[in-house]
Amino acid sequence: MNTMKKTETTNLVVESFNTDFERRLNFETLGKNLLNCAELHANKRGFGVDDIIKRNHAWVMARLSIEIFDMPYMFDEYSITTWVEKVYRMFTNRNFSISSTLNGQRPTVIGYARSVWAIIDKETRESIDLENEYGDSLKSYADNELDCPIQPFIRLKSSVNGQQSTTVEMVHKVVASDIDYNGHVNSMKYITYLCDLFSLEYYKTHKLKRVDIAYVSEAYFGDTLTLSREQTDENQYRIEVKNQKNEIIARGMMVFK
Amino acid sequence: MNTMKKTETTNLVVESFNTDFERRLNFETLGKNLLNCAELHANKRGFGVDDIIKRNHAWVMARLSIEIFDMPYMFDEYSITTWVEKVYRMFTNRNFSISSTLNGQRPTVIGYARSVWAIIDKETRESIDLENEYGDSLKSYADNELDCPIQPFIRLKSSVNGQQSTTVEMVHKVVASDIDYNGHVNSMKYITYLCDLFSLEYYKTHKLKRVDIAYVSEAYFGDTLTLSREQTDENQYRIEVKNQKNEIIARGMMVFK
Repeated sequence: MNTMKKTETTNLVVESFNTDFERRLNFETLGKNLLNCAELHANKRGFGVDDIIKRNHAWVMARLSIEIFDMPYMFDEYSITTWVEKVYRMFTNRNFSISSTLNGQRPTVIGYARSVWAIIDKETRESIDLENEYGDSLKSYADNELDCPIQPFIRLKSSVNGQQSTTVEMVHKVVASDIDYNGHVNSMKYITYLCDLFSLEYYKTHKLKRVDIAYVSEAYFGDTLTLSREQTDENQYRIEVKNQKNEIIARGMMVFK
Repeated sequence: MNTMKKTETTNLVVESFNTDFERRLNFETLGKNLLNCAELHANKRGFGVDDIIKRNHAWVMARLSIEIFDMPYMFDEYSITTWVEKVYRMFTNRNFSISSTLNGQRPTVIGYARSVWAIIDKETRESIDLENEYGDSLKSYADNELDCPIQPFIRLKSSVNGQQSTTVEMVHKVVASDIDYNGHVNSMKYITYLCDLFSLEYYKTHKLKRVDIAYVSEAYFGDTLTLSREQTDENQYRIEVKNQKNEIIARGMMVFK
């Protein structure tokens, strides 16, 4: 019997050096704070990064979707709550709610996020059987009655009968600061790559409402990443990140309002 | 009479998504946390960003020097303490100490930082007279008895009789995520630019011990920055950041061990 509750909550404040040109929390920081909260949740319950490394395992994020209705401003207080939704054989779903806790008032939900994770063997890089190896502990905390009323990961097809109507919008050579402790590009860096496909002018009239990223393959120091963007609807873009071998590294979707 | 103490301390933990490939806190996050602590100090004492904006003023950092002896690891606890050292007519010096607070033990100093600030009029972009306009409040908190035993800002001359022996090492086009609420490149981004002049291989055998940055001019969205690096000693480099008009934006110095 576990005695901890199923959710973990972190209380945060929007620090000025993590805001954008309009004094709003930037997406990369929000993403990092979601993952930090997830890590805290997992650590306290015995399946954190330092617990699973004992079996030479590592968490790998496969999908992330963040939807935000009202991004908090500089010095605003907000909180992140996370919980495990479901556990499958190869994947587990982890959800998040983001709330404004301005002036100590009753929290108001300002966004949600969904993520899909696998655990890999660090040697073989293969996914391990989650149910077999961690099913008991993960499932004892899973809760699918908690509400996460945003669409699951949105998979966007190329718009024109599979023909490529995309253009290369950005080339990024992977630098040392992109690399995390897993030896590959920090998953939150992709949020910034995607955000930086749009100009400051564009952001003056459009607010990013939702971002989806599918992590397909890993990128390493020195890789040359090319980002292609395709507009699929008035305020909607599909993005593809490829490496120098033309392998797909990540796929993204961005919705503005 | 002010009743607040002269120093402000923030307690922090190294979050996993703010670490480098060796699980150590990255320099950009450390720099941001120094500034967040400075902001907290200033806000609580009546000369924060939201106080001085009432006179249409803004804080501008002119110099930053960070020296770290032992960068904390993932999940380590640490604290930052800041205080105003001196107030001059056009500048004020703010210092920092960084301490490890691992396992609730007595804090051990692991680094120091020094910074030099001006306040500008947001309209004219000219520095204002600090002593006249904010001298009373700033000086009442100034303390130059607190120890900050690192060299002040190191000004490096070009090594070869003023001849340029530097080579352009990196070209960076300023993107939306680089821009802060002042409308220019976030001062902490320069730390990352500098750090990214070195390869992952280099960092495997060299640890960044000290970084100095002089903020000479502002960079804006769409600017093309070129970074030149010149080795001035075995483990010491001088860096120059210029924009597309060949204007110097920043000068840096990095010391490795």
